[in-house]
Amino acid sequence: MIQDRLAFALDLAERAGALGLDYFRRLETLTVTAKGHQDLVSEADRDVETLVRDALADRFPQDGIVGEEHGRLAGSSGFTWVIDPIDGTANFVAGIPQWCVVISCVHEGRTVIGITYDPLAREMFHAVRGGGAFVNGRPMRVSSSDSLGRGSVGVGFSGRTKACGAVQVIDALVDRGGVFFRNASGGLMLAYTASGRLIAYCEAHMHAWDCLAGLLMIEEAGGFVPAFDAEAALTAGVRVIAGARGIEADLTAICDASFPKVA
Amino acid sequence: MIQDRLAFALDLAERAGALGLDYFRRLETLTVTAKGHQDLVSEADRDVETLVRDALADRFPQDGIVGEEHGRLAGSSGFTWVIDPIDGTANFVAGIPQWCVVISCVHEGRTVIGITYDPLAREMFHAVRGGGAFVNGRPMRVSSSDSLGRGSVGVGFSGRTKACGAVQVIDALVDRGGVFFRNASGGLMLAYTASGRLIAYCEAHMHAWDCLAGLLMIEEAGGFVPAFDAEAALTAGVRVIAGARGIEADLTAICDASFPKVA
Repeated sequence: MIQDRLAFALDLAERAGALGLDYFRRLETLTVTAKGHQDLVSEADRDVETLVRDALADRFPQDGIVGEEHGRLAGSSGFTWVIDPIDGTANFVAGIPQWCVVISCVHEGRTVIGITYDPLAREMFHAVRGGGAFVNGRPMRVSSSDSLGRGSVGVGFSGRTKACGAVQVIDALVDRGGVFFRNASGGLMLAYTASGRLIAYCEAHMHAWDCLAGLLMIEEAGGFVPAFDAEAALTAGVRVIAGARGIEADLTAICDASFPKVA
Repeated sequence: MIQDRLAFALDLAERAGALGLDYFRRLETLTVTAKGHQDLVSEADRDVETLVRDALADRFPQDGIVGEEHGRLAGSSGFTWVIDPIDGTANFVAGIPQWCVVISCVHEGRTVIGITYDPLAREMFHAVRGGGAFVNGRPMRVSSSDSLGRGSVGVGFSGRTKACGAVQVIDALVDRGGVFFRNASGGLMLAYTASGRLIAYCEAHMHAWDCLAGLLMIEEAGGFVPAFDAEAALTAGVRVIAGARGIEADLTAICDASFPKVA
């Protein structure tokens, strides 16, 4: 069951990425008129989301679907797809080539499939619960760093929580000789953490569609992740602190002091 | 004279990017052994730098060359090439697909050519003094933003200056409803500013090879840049605050309060 879904979703992520990239390239070549630009952005969002939702609904009609743009479509199979057709929307809109397609699948309160596809760098990250984590088919491992001073930490923030929490985290990191990274795509930064390129990622609050895939990858790549129920996360979201085990204690202490605890 | 140099350097940047990308892809597929990885990184650095230096020395033997890795090679033509074969080295080493090749050319105290090539996103940014700024041949304009709350500001920092300055800038930005961005490649962030994707970029201190190309692009794209002598910058570096004119006063005030003035 899971293998069918994985194979289908990997192919779907690639198709969605190609469609998004087609729009992204057209955005670049647009004469800059605010109106035309905004129309094309909306069309891109809608088309990529529709492609993903329709394909899933067609192939797995009993599965539920939850995404950023629409409400929850309930299912009866016990599987729920959780999708973010374009993660890093602000980058996409601005023309910054750092965004990705995120598809995950939840079953019995746990993420069982996580996929993040970057069509520009042509990197396909994926994980299956109990089956490991991979980038373009090669196994991923989180960083072996045991110090905040060794490697970069991705820091995210959004308008939903007090941005000063993220500033506090950065302040504490830099104070300990650390380095922060923020390319404005939580999906990419989580995938970079799973592949050991960043030593960790933290954000006061993320929606399920932004983080479930990446958190499964980090877990399957040997890292630490927050304890949470994926079903509950579909409505409430998650406070995210995840990465290399050797820095778990230090980073958690910083985040506890900086981020309000999400209920 | 300048057109010859521009045409040659655009082609050279593309070749250097392709060579860097070849190494980058090989790094990805390496079994992760710290030693083998480090050797290949050093080889990549050396080979890309050698390609650029040798090509320039061969085609324009009277020109000077200054780069990150070697000392200054004096010239007699009045033109000096200023190169950073791989900008965003930490990303390159970690496997993060956000780095670029930067080539600029200085004449009589001013940058006359600036080139930044991103081989992953296949974006060629360039500017010629008095001739405009372009991305993949299309004219670039800086953002029309007139508020720190509209758009993202790239913030850089390195081990050379107190990192707390960057934290202060981020704190002040966020306090004004702004958003910061740091993908750890100053070359890319300056090019993103020239193309209006970021509204500005600031860093307490940058070396000439990291910033001359981007600053020329921002100037030619209608933005504000610091006043400096490019010859002097070759040894002393520059404090960089540059971007959309509508936020110049506000961002400069923040940076004045956060960064020590570089002599």
